Amino acid sequence: MALTEFELIRRYFASPNAGATRDDVVLGVGDDGAILRPPAGMDLVAVADTLIEGVHFPVGSAPGSIGHRALAVNLSDIAAMGAKPAWALLSLSLPQVEEIWLAAFTDGFARLARSHAVALVGGDTTGGALVANVQVLGFLPAGEGLRRSGGQPGDWVFVSGTPGDAAAGLALEMGAEGPGGLDEAWLRDRFLYPTPRVGLGQLLRSLASACIDVSDGLFGDLGKLVAASGCGAEIDVTQLPLSPALIRVLGAEQALQRALSGGDDYELCFTIPDSRLREAQTLLAGQATPTRCIGRLRSGSDVILQRAGTVMEFSHPGFDHFAR
Amino acid sequence: MALTEFELIRRYFASPNAGATRDDVVLGVGDDGAILRPPAGMDLVAVADTLIEGVHFPVGSAPGSIGHRALAVNLSDIAAMGAKPAWALLSLSLPQVEEIWLAAFTDGFARLARSHAVALVGGDTTGGALVANVQVLGFLPAGEGLRRSGGQPGDWVFVSGTPGDAAAGLALEMGAEGPGGLDEAWLRDRFLYPTPRVGLGQLLRSLASACIDVSDGLFGDLGKLVAASGCGAEIDVTQLPLSPALIRVLGAEQALQRALSGGDDYELCFTIPDSRLREAQTLLAGQATPTRCIGRLRSGSDVILQRAGTVMEFSHPGFDHFAR
Repeated sequence: MALTEFELIRRYFASPNAGATRDDVVLGVGDDGAILRPPAGMDLVAVADTLIEGVHFPVGSAPGSIGHRALAVNLSDIAAMGAKPAWALLSLSLPQVEEIWLAAFTDGFARLARSHAVALVGGDTTGGALVANVQVLGFLPAGEGLRRSGGQPGDWVFVSGTPGDAAAGLALEMGAEGPGGLDEAWLRDRFLYPTPRVGLGQLLRSLASACIDVSDGLFGDLGKLVAASGCGAEIDVTQLPLSPALIRVLGAEQALQRALSGGDDYELCFTIPDSRLREAQTLLAGQATPTRCIGRLRSGSDVILQRAGTVMEFSHPGFDHFAR
Repeated sequence: MALTEFELIRRYFASPNAGATRDDVVLGVGDDGAILRPPAGMDLVAVADTLIEGVHFPVGSAPGSIGHRALAVNLSDIAAMGAKPAWALLSLSLPQVEEIWLAAFTDGFARLARSHAVALVGGDTTGGALVANVQVLGFLPAGEGLRRSGGQPGDWVFVSGTPGDAAAGLALEMGAEGPGGLDEAWLRDRFLYPTPRVGLGQLLRSLASACIDVSDGLFGDLGKLVAASGCGAEIDVTQLPLSPALIRVLGAEQALQRALSGGDDYELCFTIPDSRLREAQTLLAGQATPTRCIGRLRSGSDVILQRAGTVMEFSHPGFDHFAR
């Protein structure tokens, strides 16, 4: 029996199991809108991101991964602003209602939501191509938000995690056959279940001069940061943090290319003023998420890649959805 | 020349022309997220709604209408909560980038946004089928939000405007040929450019016991209100406010059916306690938006339709996107 839209919303998304329970949710899923109570003295951060089947994930992806990623890409934007996430709205369009699919999707979404104390408070479901649009609202102390535009020449450029893994994982998911094994499974997981750097983002609020989330490729996203900051950057590619799995599966040279141009990393790229470098290194060393200094902002307007003192040619413009 | 996603966002949606300018927007479109400053002592209302080509509007609809409706359907939800809208996020997926289309879409969105002092503060654009997802955030004094669930037996049931017009307008847009003329043009306009009842919703905050926005058909949406309120309702169909244009184009009987079951009205259906009826009638009479008392809540669990003292058969379950 086909569920009506109303029953569908109620059964899966109105349940407290669809996310965390929070005292600041006055009215959640099920009315025309959610009523929320923001804490005093905090700024609100609002982000929205869309995942479309066949564009942002392969047709036939595991529903649990789609649910996880739909929220994760938004939590990554929240992290890049230095905010703490609180509430999410989910707009889901589905070609048909399959309960097993929906249960797995909701489970992927809800596990990540609960782990960050995020409540699902609203949204809608419609018939159509498979599209998941999520909005997340979060908070930060008034006036303390991180931006792309705060970098200055001389600031040190850092990146979290090991970029390139997710792009390699997606290629494996898309059917590029390899020898299989643990490395490939690990890379696929890095695409299917990315870890948004929410804790790191909040720490950076008091340390970083600028921050961006790496979703469209490190080279291109760092380009956006330097454009917003009105300066250039020089990156030492020998310092790029490459995962052992990526190097083993692709080889060192291809791994480097993927780390620079691959999308879907959901890492943070940020800049630390020289005066704060030592303090930052101490604090970052105590974090669960690894971070690495890969270069420095400079005057100019380009991102220059260096290897052993030689400037590298690299013209990839960064990931762009319309160019995909 | 194809625009990149980044250029596209900047050119059309980062412009102050894409909506109102507001002092409480700390950081708008162009970073990983927007930074917003909520007023003290107010609750936040969050709504999200999606329009998909071929599902919620005909293929080839005028882009100005799509932009208008994408925002209007969300402002209607904000109105149903009794809130004042402030900020919007727009996630737009497009099969290709056509500047003329995009300019007209943005114009339709922006005109309505400015007329309600709504700032466009974020969102994203991607390649894919034509889908516009909008999230609107608004405010209301803490604890004063309208809900579907506050109705009590004995409360009077009201509806704004003239339901059924938009459904008739959509049928005309879909190619049902008629004699043409002013009535048809007016009905089409009621579908293409609905007027969200934002001012009325804020007035109702201090008057109504329950409220819902009529988007899926009056009969079905009133059914949701009574279900949430744990009661039933009795409607006198001779009191339904039908537009002269609807009656002239469809005839009285078909007009009545459309008013009960047609979607896309974006009117408000609300209930007024008997003790507040006289006061409400005085205040409502002074509003630009017409409202009409059409019946009363009663014990039970159904919506009963009466005509001249006789119960009418009416089994339409209300509009459901999956059933469309």
